[in-house]
Order: sequence, then C-alpha cells, then structure tokens
Amino acid sequence: MTQLNPRFITFEGPDGAGKTTQIRKIALYLQEKGIPLRMTREPGGSVGAEEIRSLLVLGDKGRWDAVTETLLFMAARRDHLTKTIWPSLRRGEWVLSDRFFDSTLAYQGFGRGENKELSLNDLNALYRLVAGDFKPDLTIILDLPAEEGLKRAKLRADKAERFESMPLSFHENLRQGFLKIAESEPLRCVVVNSARPEDEIFEDIKKVLKERLNV
Amino acid sequence: MTQLNPRFITFEGPDGAGKTTQIRKIALYLQEKGIPLRMTREPGGSVGAEEIRSLLVLGDKGRWDAVTETLLFMAARRDHLTKTIWPSLRRGEWVLSDRFFDSTLAYQGFGRGENKELSLNDLNALYRLVAGDFKPDLTIILDLPAEEGLKRAKLRADKAERFESMPLSFHENLRQGFLKIAESEPLRCVVVNSARPEDEIFEDIKKVLKERLNV
Repeated sequence: MTQLNPRFITFEGPDGAGKTTQIRKIALYLQEKGIPLRMTREPGGSVGAEEIRSLLVLGDKGRWDAVTETLLFMAARRDHLTKTIWPSLRRGEWVLSDRFFDSTLAYQGFGRGENKELSLNDLNALYRLVAGDFKPDLTIILDLPAEEGLKRAKLRADKAERFESMPLSFHENLRQGFLKIAESEPLRCVVVNSARPEDEIFEDIKKVLKERLNV
Repeated sequence: MTQLNPRFITFEGPDGAGKTTQIRKIALYLQEKGIPLRMTREPGGSVGAEEIRSLLVLGDKGRWDAVTETLLFMAARRDHLTKTIWPSLRRGEWVLSDRFFDSTLAYQGFGRGENKELSLNDLNALYRLVAGDFKPDLTIILDLPAEEGLKRAKLRADKAERFESMPLSFHENLRQGFLKIAESEPLRCVVVNSARPEDEIFEDIKKVLKERLNV
C-alpha cells in the first residue's frame, strides 16, 4: 500500500464508554494494515506528563481547585505533545490518544455548567498556548446517555475517579458538551453510539476510518 | 496601635540579591510592631504548590519546555493563592512572599529576550486566570548589576539553580525586565539597590514601608 500521512486520532467520551477497548481494537486493525502507530493517553503519555498525572489523580479529591487542576492538565498536555505526540508524528507514526483536549472542554468546561471558573474562551486560549493550530485529524466521540454514563462511572469507582459522585446533571452537561463539540467541528469529530455491543461500535469506527482517512 | 488592613508584600529580584535575608528582617521588624504575618515563597508556599515545585526543581534541567514550565509555575501560584495567600489575608495576616508573578514575567518573559515561546500578553492573560485583579500591595525589587547577579548565582549553583549557566545577556535581560516592571507599575513597585551591605538595604526597605504602607 502507499505511504499515508501520519494521523492523530483521539477518542473521547465519558468513563465507561469503551474508549480503551476500542483504541486497542483499532490499533490492532491499523497495525495489520502495516501502519506504524503509538497508543497513548491523557492525562499522561510522556514521562513528565505521567508525573503531573500523579498529582492529579492521587491524594484527596478536591485538593486542587478547578483553575489549578486545569493548568495541571494543560501542562501535562504540553509535555505530552512535545515529548510524545509531535515526535511520533514526525517519525511517521500514527498516534491514537485515549482522551485529549475535548475532555478538558467537556469536564472542566461544559460539565460544570454555569459554575465554571474558566470560560470556554479561557480554555480555548490555554489550548492555543500549548498546541498552537495543531488539532487531531479525527476525533471519535463515544456517546452514552447520561444515566448510562453515571451507572458505568459508578461501576468503575475504584480507579481514582471523582466523577461518579457528581449528580446526574453533571453527566448530562458532560454528554451535551461532547455533542456540542462534535456539532461545532463536524470535519474533525464523529459521534458513535456506544450504548451497544463492542463489535458494533468497532464496525462503526472502522467505517469512519475508511470514510474520513481512507484506511 | 490601630489595626491595619492586611497587606500582601512581594520581594523580587535575581538569586543572590538578598531577598530571603531581607524578608526575615522585615518579618521580625513587623512582628515587633504587633503585626500578624505569614512568610511564604514561590514556587511553593502551600502543600500542593510545594509538590509542583518538586517537579520544577528536581530532575534534569530542560526536562520541561518553556510553556510546560510556565503552566506549572502558574498552577503552583494558583494553589499558593487559594490555599495560603488569600486565607492568610482574610484572617488578617500580612503576607510576605519571596518571589511572585514578577519572577515569571522576568524569567520566562523578559529574561528570554526575543526567544520566548510565550509573549508578555500571554503571561499576563495567564496571571488573570489565576489571580483575577488581585495584585501585591507592595513589591520590593532588589536590583543588582547583571555581572553581580551572575556572579552571585554561580556562588549558589549548588541549590538546584539553572540560571547560573545562562549567558550574561540573560542576566542583563532579567535585570532590565525587573526594572521595566517597576517602571510600568510605580505605585506597586519600589526598586532597592542591593549591591550594598545588608543593613543599608534593610534601612531603605523600612523607609519604603513607612512611606507606602505607613508602618
């Protein structure tokens, strides 16, 4: 096959939507086509960003206020970009990331509704500081009804999550946030219904890859 | 004496200019006047900010790029403000801080000359995100000729400094940066010549406190 430009693909959505499972399937699928790739995640994905991640996920819930937390996420993202994502793309590897900036927009922005300390404009300005004009080539948004998102978050509450204790309205804002992001950037984002069996979701994502990126 | 409004006083200038010594003297001087106060420092000054400080000062020099480093400084500053500075002022304590935002402006902004990844506007926008309109009531800038600053930084090169290896032009930019800040905010900032004996510097600072804050 002909050499393809390396692509940066992000997977977004609430916890429990199946991002990790689908990334693994898609990674194998692309590797079988001979595409060199790197799987990564946020927060984290580089040595320094994983250290910042520890500050974010360990210790008391609420140890950071929303502004501090967001700045730590953005610092980790900058390190992830400069140490992992950009070097991988330059080497010709595709990069698949479990979460990226849309999670910051959804959780720290839309999820908090009117109570947010930082506006969407603030968050976008921070993104431009860390990434400039760089954006994912494709973002797969795994969509779940809010009740289902809350239920799955509770089932996974062992893994240092803080969002399982948030009210249903938070999960509804979060879902609507991801959908608004998709609506505002239709060329980059695709919404995939993930309240279905894994294999059906996987088939949908493969179709998206074919249509959008010709693989 | 009558109760005074609590004040936030910052001490700025290059390493080796005598900030720590002068803060200690001023703290004793104010405490003898019955003023409750809190001495603090940046980066650090709160439990979380000290953890972020460890990320900044430990490990390889150059482990963070300039943008990541600045975001970590700003995250630490937000935690310092919300956990230490603002609560102390609300309790009626004066707060004396060894470094604050002017150090970010001087080191990450002016010090890097034309090579900076973040503009002064970017840095000021970040400051507004973390502090809003809040500013120090008084900033003492301890000024040293660049050659003297470089010499003293080299003498202190054991303490995880990274700036002793920077060229003289960096130290000159740094000095000019602090002087420009003072020039642009004369009501907040006072420049004190610190290429003199400790006691003379201390006498000058006491005069400033009398003139500016009536103590």
